[in-house]
Formats: sequence, structure tokens, C-alpha cells
Amino acid sequence: MSKTFHGIIGYTITPFSADGEQLDLDALGRSIDRLIDGGVHAIAPLGSTGEGAYLSDLEWQQVAAFSLRHIAGRVPTIVSVSDLTTAGAIRRARFAQEHGADAVMVLPAAYWKLTEAEIFEHYRAIGASIKLPIMLYNNPATSGTDMSVDLILRIVREVENVTMVKESTGDIQRMHKLQLLGEGKVPFYNGCNPLALEAFVAGASGWCTAAPNLIPALNQQLYQAVQANDLNAAKAVFYRQLPLLEFILKGGLPATIKAGLGMTGLPVGEPRRPVFALDTAGQARLQQLLKQMP
Amino acid sequence: MSKTFHGIIGYTITPFSADGEQLDLDALGRSIDRLIDGGVHAIAPLGSTGEGAYLSDLEWQQVAAFSLRHIAGRVPTIVSVSDLTTAGAIRRARFAQEHGADAVMVLPAAYWKLTEAEIFEHYRAIGASIKLPIMLYNNPATSGTDMSVDLILRIVREVENVTMVKESTGDIQRMHKLQLLGEGKVPFYNGCNPLALEAFVAGASGWCTAAPNLIPALNQQLYQAVQANDLNAAKAVFYRQLPLLEFILKGGLPATIKAGLGMTGLPVGEPRRPVFALDTAGQARLQQLLKQMP
Amino acid sequence: MSKTFHGIIGYTITPFSADGEQLDLDALGRSIDRLIDGGVHAIAPLGSTGEGAYLSDLEWQQVAAFSLRHIAGRVPTIVSVSDLTTAGAIRRARFAQEHGADAVMVLPAAYWKLTEAEIFEHYRAIGASIKLPIMLYNNPATSGTDMSVDLILRIVREVENVTMVKESTGDIQRMHKLQLLGEGKVPFYNGCNPLALEAFVAGASGWCTAAPNLIPALNQQLYQAVQANDLNAAKAVFYRQLPLLEFILKGGLPATIKAGLGMTGLPVGEPRRPVFALDTAGQARLQQLLKQMP
Amino acid sequence: MSKTFHGIIGYTITPFSADGEQLDLDALGRSIDRLIDGGVHAIAPLGSTGEGAYLSDLEWQQVAAFSLRHIAGRVPTIVSVSDLTTAGAIRRARFAQEHGADAVMVLPAAYWKLTEAEIFEHYRAIGASIKLPIMLYNNPATSGTDMSVDLILRIVREVENVTMVKESTGDIQRMHKLQLLGEGKVPFYNGCNPLALEAFVAGASGWCTAAPNLIPALNQQLYQAVQANDLNAAKAVFYRQLPLLEFILKGGLPATIKAGLGMTGLPVGEPRRPVFALDTAGQARLQQLLKQMP
Repeated sequence: MSKTFHGIIGYTITPFSADGEQLDLDALGRSIDRLIDGGVHAIAPLGSTGEGAYLSDLEWQQVAAFSLRHIAGRVPTIVSVSDLTTAGAIRRARFAQEHGADAVMVLPAAYWKLTEAEIFEHYRAIGASIKLPIMLYNNPATSGTDMSVDLILRIVREVENVTMVKESTGDIQRMHKLQLLGEGKVPFYNGCNPLALEAFVAGASGWCTAAPNLIPALNQQLYQAVQANDLNAAKAVFYRQLPLLEFILKGGLPATIKAGLGMTGLPVGEPRRPVFALDTAGQARLQQLLKQMP
Repeated sequence: MSKTFHGIIGYTITPFSADGEQLDLDALGRSIDRLIDGGVHAIAPLGSTGEGAYLSDLEWQQVAAFSLRHIAGRVPTIVSVSDLTTAGAIRRARFAQEHGADAVMVLPAAYWKLTEAEIFEHYRAIGASIKLPIMLYNNPATSGTDMSVDLILRIVREVENVTMVKESTGDIQRMHKLQLLGEGKVPFYNGCNPLALEAFVAGASGWCTAAPNLIPALNQQLYQAVQANDLNAAKAVFYRQLPLLEFILKGGLPATIKAGLGMTGLPVGEPRRPVFALDTAGQARLQQLLKQMP
Repeated sequence: MSKTFHGIIGYTITPFSADGEQLDLDALGRSIDRLIDGGVHAIAPLGSTGEGAYLSDLEWQQVAAFSLRHIAGRVPTIVSVSDLTTAGAIRRARFAQEHGADAVMVLPAAYWKLTEAEIFEHYRAIGASIKLPIMLYNNPATSGTDMSVDLILRIVREVENVTMVKESTGDIQRMHKLQLLGEGKVPFYNGCNPLALEAFVAGASGWCTAAPNLIPALNQQLYQAVQANDLNAAKAVFYRQLPLLEFILKGGLPATIKAGLGMTGLPVGEPRRPVFALDTAGQARLQQLLKQMP
Repeated sequence: MSKTFHGIIGYTITPFSADGEQLDLDALGRSIDRLIDGGVHAIAPLGSTGEGAYLSDLEWQQVAAFSLRHIAGRVPTIVSVSDLTTAGAIRRARFAQEHGADAVMVLPAAYWKLTEAEIFEHYRAIGASIKLPIMLYNNPATSGTDMSVDLILRIVREVENVTMVKESTGDIQRMHKLQLLGEGKVPFYNGCNPLALEAFVAGASGWCTAAPNLIPALNQQLYQAVQANDLNAAKAVFYRQLPLLEFILKGGLPATIKAGLGMTGLPVGEPRRPVFALDTAGQARLQQLLKQMP
């Protein structure tokens, strides 16, 4: 691939109108500009934070096309194309490719628990249908499927364009295994906010996170301290942002990030039901956390 | 409601063309006739077994409308209307009502783990949008959300048309709690095949199952033995069918039921990818099991 | 073995002096007489309820010897001889044999999680050291080790005097597997009180329980209804006693049974620390439950 | 306390004679000398690795007394005094204090799952019985009891001489919480070998580990790199030793450490049954790992 992924990879939210029915693409554009102004090294639309799973096919296409057009190559873009069916994921992957994505991200979403052979074939079929690099995404909490490191590495070896791995189990030992068994050649990315420091220490190439919507400077400082081999500085800046990282994880990313954007001058609506907006107590806590952070 | 639900409630599969792309409604009609000929007391289209989660909205409507038209009131029908968004579930519930369903079934499908308040509001909103009775369905293995008995009973008490509970955790003690805390007034249904005997013994009103597609007589005999207060007979007929019940659960309901229908003269295609069809070894085992059972 | 085990198998508690330091063998004798008067078909001293794990080696021997002497063959006796070391379990098994036990019970207690080979060898070595039949006991909640049904049946096949299986996982499907894979020839016993009805329905030969210390008549009636093939009666008497069965499980068997014995005229002291005696609210609830039951 | 605990805290094994029956105190002395020669900052006898749970009371006292006499203040000593009963743990804690221990370590070992109130009272009672500092040890995998960070910090605040926390859940986020909620004032120690790097990065004061029996230089280098704020060096030396750290964890600490000591000239016997010695394949793998490491 021409563009490599590293550093802080920011998730976009998907803004809705007040009743949750309509997309608000104008607000989406402004949230993208914020992320880029905040220094993210790449952008990942339509992931978990982007409520991709809650959009109709048409809405999904509108958000994907708009995001790619608006980012316009200012930073590399990796579009989440997960779908419950293989055919649907292929359709989305091709759509992303045609509209200029630099890579796609694939979570093996499942209703029925998938076997290893089914997961492998899912990635193989998607890989065969596009030329873009694929970031394999492991997140059992949302997908219902936990891929072992052995399975992940087999997919990376055998499906040519699966070249990156995003790990969100929250178990740092998975990253150790990716580093050891992958012999340092398989770039992996952290998707679990509270592990931001440890993942970089373990060798992660990047951190996929919604946090730069709210605290871009702290996120950057953590990455820079690690790059500068300054453990004490990295630890200090990590613990400064950890309360917010834990808050957005525990409170739900769409609800907390959308609330935080609204508090900082960019109204983006609420998450789509049944997911609730952040409640009053949560808003007060978030206000307080944002005040403590630059 | 005018029609009550009890006994053996059969799931339909959703037949596809060979490439998995097209619906085969003709085969669906024949599978429905088979279920009714086999004596089921009710039919539940578009549930897990029916691959409801893998259908487009249009396909879902086609299957729902066709099923209701084809059943034509010969037995009561309960249509699964689960959707990741509350708005989507409401649309489906209204569609089912307009097309003549006797009840709807709702699983709180989730991408983001839902809070109890979000689940409650999901059921409240769906309940307020239709007049049909609702069967609340708890199945953490597929929905990612486990509802406590306390939450379930609160929903039953406070949402007027949530009148039935389907329990699929596989933990018989949940049914004990439903019976004790519901003071015997909340009808509950078993959705875990290997618990068929124990659930009836614990007081379940019915058994929601895909098994009558393959072994309707054994399913009926179990129910009748329980009705006849004949524990020894119930136990004997339960253990006769248990190997098949375990096989279809472990092998995946769409894959095993579709294979079994094909073996018995009704080709219905394969599950939609990424779910695999039953493999050769599985087919041999299924053949063997079906031969052992009438 | 000359004596077979079936029906209601009652656990003894181990009475202590007020400060928890001394054994109160006199009270133990009276509690044994109560159990026998209540109709238990066998007695199991020094199990979980008997706080066997909290006794010194000397105390363990005193309780074992006294219990066997006091029971004096009025009913068969099965002594729990579990110990963290194989050598210790063998010493206890031989002691029990020398003092007249009819069988011994062995839980594979573990500090370090045991492999299947280690568990097998543990049973083999104990089996080779005595002539008594052994009841293998699976209870991961207290032992930390969960034995699969396959492992259990391998031990039963290969260790001659392991002839009975006690299952306490709370998963009724384990009993189904024991029945199916053991081809109905391996007698199994239920050790999970709230599964009393379902276990008998699934084919359990007996129910190992502390409940006959408090509600012997209800326990007997359940067993008799099952023997009489009267499902409705069994269900009714099961639900009558279920609130108490759940209470003693949730509140801790030594604490609740000891409190209940005290309330009914037989003071037996408190559990040994760190386990607490039943608190005031628990005592009030237990009083209420006991009043509701004959 | 006069002596503080930090850095590499080495566990001793407990050597047995060939039949597993007798203690080999001479070998124990030599293993202690090795640890001190290897540079450990403190020694912890009778922990998990030391098979403390598998010793009789008399053996436990012999090992404790011998270890303290042999260490003779060359490094601080922290003696594990865990016992299933509170009375037993108090006896051991007093014994350790009388024989010169600098601190004691307490795991809330449990047969019956303990409530938070029972755990608290266990620590309170032990704390009140001695003057030494206590290291609270959380390891649900061996104790069966998982203490929340909130409970741990309450014990630290309210029991004066509980001044240190050892965390072995394997979840690095527990250490984050200890650091944040303890406001950096509660020293915590890592007990999970594969988290050695991340724990130091998260702020752990020390690493309690059996590894210095085999690879003391690598353990020291990791600690020194962290102290020198050299993240790259720490990462490099961590990944060099990680295969061995994972091997000893997965293979069982007593079995693998004892085998490794034997391979390097210090025969210490096998673990006590039912725990097996390292098998042939494991020995070959361990040989290979030790050759790769200085």
C-alpha cells in the first residue's frame, strides 16, 4: 500500500438529526476537520463509534462516500465494512475501494457463532474481492467472536491483503503473542482505550480511538513520548488522560463522544435508539473531565 | 389474544437458491405444510433458525408476508421482528401485525451492550406501537445481552402486551425463577432444545424448536407424555431424541435443519455465508441419527 | 459393594464450640440421629457442608471415626476424604475404610489447576489404596477443577472402584451426557439442590443434600413422587421446597444449616472463620421459610 | 517498616526428597543462596511456587524457620502465611513474626466463596495479631476469590498494617485502578509474569516472581531499564525473556522451576502429587529456552 497506518487513528461519529432519523453530513464534515486539525495520523469512519451497525445500507454508503470525499486524502482513511453476511461485506468493501479508501477494516460480525473455517473463508472472500489492504479487527465484546492469535496469524499469512491486525480484547498478552509469533512483522493496532500506554510499550503501530474527538493533544503527547523513548513522560501523560479514556469506554463511545462534541461546540445529535444519549449525571462528569484536560 | 400459544412451536427455515442470493418461497411453503402436518401447535417464522438476521429488509418482508399468507390461520403464528434499532423493530412489528400475525417475538439484539433502561425502553416502544401480544426472548448467546429474571418480570408487568417469555440461556434455574417470582402467572417457553424435558417439568407452556422439521412425532410424544403426567414415558422419549437435539444445536440450526430437510426430500439450499452448510461428516452423522428415529 | 446408594443422601454439619475451636461431638451425634429419623437413605459426613476443608487432620479423624461409630450401620455411610495432596487423600480413605465406611467421596481439590492426567492419576492412586467404592465428585465452584464428562467416564471405566459420580456444576446437561454416554450404567447423583427435581427426572440415582437437616419430609416426598411416576406431584412438592433450597445454597450451607438447626432446638455453633454465621436478616428469612414448610 | 520492598522479589521453591515425602532443607538453602547471588531485592518463601498449600503445618513451620535463618537478613523476607482458616493464618503470621520475617503475604484462600465482609474481617483479624506489614495478595485463579480494587483499597485504608498489594489477575487495568484510586500512595506489586513490563510501566513497585531461580540477569535488566527510563531497552529485554515467562506460567511454576533448577545443577525433587513433574517434552523445551537466555 502507498500509505501506511501508524500513530493516532481517529474514529468518526455519525451525526444524526434530533429525532435520530436523518444523517447530518454537514456536522460529520466538521467533526472530520476537527480530527485532522487535532493531528490524527489517519481516520477510520463507520466503525463501532460511527454506529455503522445501526445504519441502513443506503445511509452507510452516504456516510462512506461523504467521509472519503471530505477527507480528500489529507490523511489516510480506513473504512469499516463489516456486515453480518459475506456478500454484504464484499459489497461495502468494493464501495469503499471505488470511493478512494486507503484500506478497509473487517470485524467478523456474527449472529450464529462462527467456526474458524467460516471466519477464514469470510476474510478470504473479502480479500479476493478488493485490492486494498485489510485490517482484521478482533473485538469479541461487540462481534461475539473471539479470534485466537493463531487463527489471526494464519489469516494474515494466507490472505495476501490482510496486512494489519486490530486487537480490542483488552488482554495485553494477545499483543505479546502477535509480536512474538508474528516475529515483529505483523503490524498490530490497539483498539482498547485503557491499554493505550501498554499497547505502545508492547509494540503496537497505532491506536485506533475515538478520544481525539475530545482530547487530541493528550493523545498525541502519549504517542510522541513513546516515540521519544521517554517512559516517565509517557506514563505521566497516560495517567492524565486515563480517567477520560475509561469514562468513554464505560459510558459507551457513541453516547459519550457525541455528548462531548456537543459540549465543545459541535452538536451531532444522539445515538440511535435503543442506545441512549448520555444522561445528566454522565454529562456533569464528562464536563468535569474535559475541564481537567487541555 | 384470541389464540394462545402452547405445546410445540415450530421454527421455519428460510430456503435460498443454490447461490444463496434468492429466496425460494415455494420451498418455504412446503416446509410450512410439513410442520403443520407434523402437528405443531404454532409456527414461528424468521427466528434464529430462519436466518432473519441475514436477510435484507425487503427479503424479511417477503418471507413474513408469504409465511402468514401460507399458514393462513391453520395454526397461530408468532413472527420474530428483532432488529438492531428500535425503529427497525417497530417497522417489522407493524408489518407483521398488518399481515395477520398472532404475536411477535422480540430479542434485544445489540451491538453495544445495552443497559437495563435501554432494554426496557426498547420493549416499551415496540409494545406501544402494536396491539399484538409480544413474546420477550432472552438468548445471550446470539443477542449478546442477558436479561435477568427481575428485569424480564418488570417488563412483563409494565409493558401491557409483553405477555410471554422465551428463555434460551440453557440454565433451568431461570425457569424456576420465572415460575416462582411470576407466581405461575407468566407463561414461559423453552428455547433450548436439550432442556426440552426439564423445561416442561419446570412448568414451561411450550417449546420453541426447529426439531419438528425433522422429528415431529418424537417432539409431540414428549409433550403428550408430560401432559399425561407420565414421567417415565417422558424421560424415555426425551432420551431417544436427545442425540438429535444436541446435534442440531451444536452443528448450527440453519445448517443442520436445512441439511436434514434436503435428506428427507425437501431441498432448501444452504445457509447464507459466512455460515457454512453441514459438512460431509456432519451429513453422515445426521443421516444416521434420522434413521434411528421415526 | 453390599450396600447401594440411592434416594436422599444427607450431609452432616460439623458442630463446634462457641469460639469455633473445639469439636462438639455430642451435637454431631444428635444431628445424625435427626437425619436418620427423617428418613435419609444414606449419610455423607465431612463433605462441603461438614466443613471438612477447615478441619485439622486430627479433627478430621475424630469426626470420621465418631460419625461411623454413631451411625453404626443404620444407613450406609459415604465419607468425603478429599485432600489437596494425593498422599493425604489416601491416608483419609484408608482411615475411613478401617473405621467402617461403606464408600468414600473424592473431590479433586486443587491449588494449582490440575491437568486431566493429574486428575486421573489422583483417582487411580486412591482407588488402588482401598477396597471401598468411590464416588467421584465434580464441583468446580469449590474445587477449582471442572472435570468433563468424557474424563469422568474414562476414570469410571479404568479405575475399578470408582463406581459412582456426583455432579454439582448446576448444569443439567452434564447429567444428560452421563446418562447417554454412560449408557445408563453409571449411577450419578445430584449435588446441586435447586436441580433436585430435574436431576431425578434426568435419571439421577440420588440427591446428596444438606436439606434433610431441616426439611426431611419435603425431600422424601419429592423422591417418592418421582418413584411413583407422578410428575405433577413431584413438581408441586419441588416448588414448595425450592425457596429453601435456594436460600441455603445462596447463604452458604454451613451457615444456613447450622442456623436452622439452632432454630429447631439443636445448637451446633457457627462455621469456622473466615466464614460468617448467618446474619440477622438471614435468620429472619430462614425462620419465615421454615414456618412455611412442614 | 524498616525495610522496604521493591524491584525483583524472588520466590523460593520447596525441595522434596525423591518420593515427595521429606523436605530437603539443604537444597532449599542452596536455592536461596542462588537467588541472593542473582541479585533479588527480596525473597518470598512459601508462596504458590513454594507449594505452601501442600505442606503439613509442621513442614510449613520448618520451611519458614529455616528460610528466615538462612536468609539471615541479607535481603528482606516476606513469608506467605495463607491458610483456609483465619485462626490458621494468624498462627502462621505470628510464627513468621517470631522468626524474623520482615513482612507477611496473605491470599484469602477459600473453599466456600467468601463475601467482602468475610474477606475484610479475615485481614482485620490477621492484621490485629501481628506488628509486621502485610502484603494483600489477589489471585483468583488459585484462591477462588477475586477482590475488587475498591475492596482492596478499603482494606488498605482500614487495616493499618496492610500496606502493600500484590495483583495477579493478569488484568493490567487493575493496576491502573490501584494507581489512580490509590492516588499513587499504595505500593502495588506484580504477580503475573507475562505482565512484567506493563506492570512496571503502570507503576508497580516490584515484581514477585519465580523466574530469578532460572534467569536472574534478564529479570534484573528489565528492572534496571525501567529505572533508567529506557523504554526501548526495557521492551527488548522483556521480549527476550517472555517465552520463558510464559512457559513457566503455563507449565506450572513448581514443576517448571524445579525442573530448571535440576537442569542447572541443583536437584530439588518433584512437586508433590497430584501435581506432576515436568514431562519429557516440557523438559526439552525448557532446555532450549534456557540455552537461548544468559
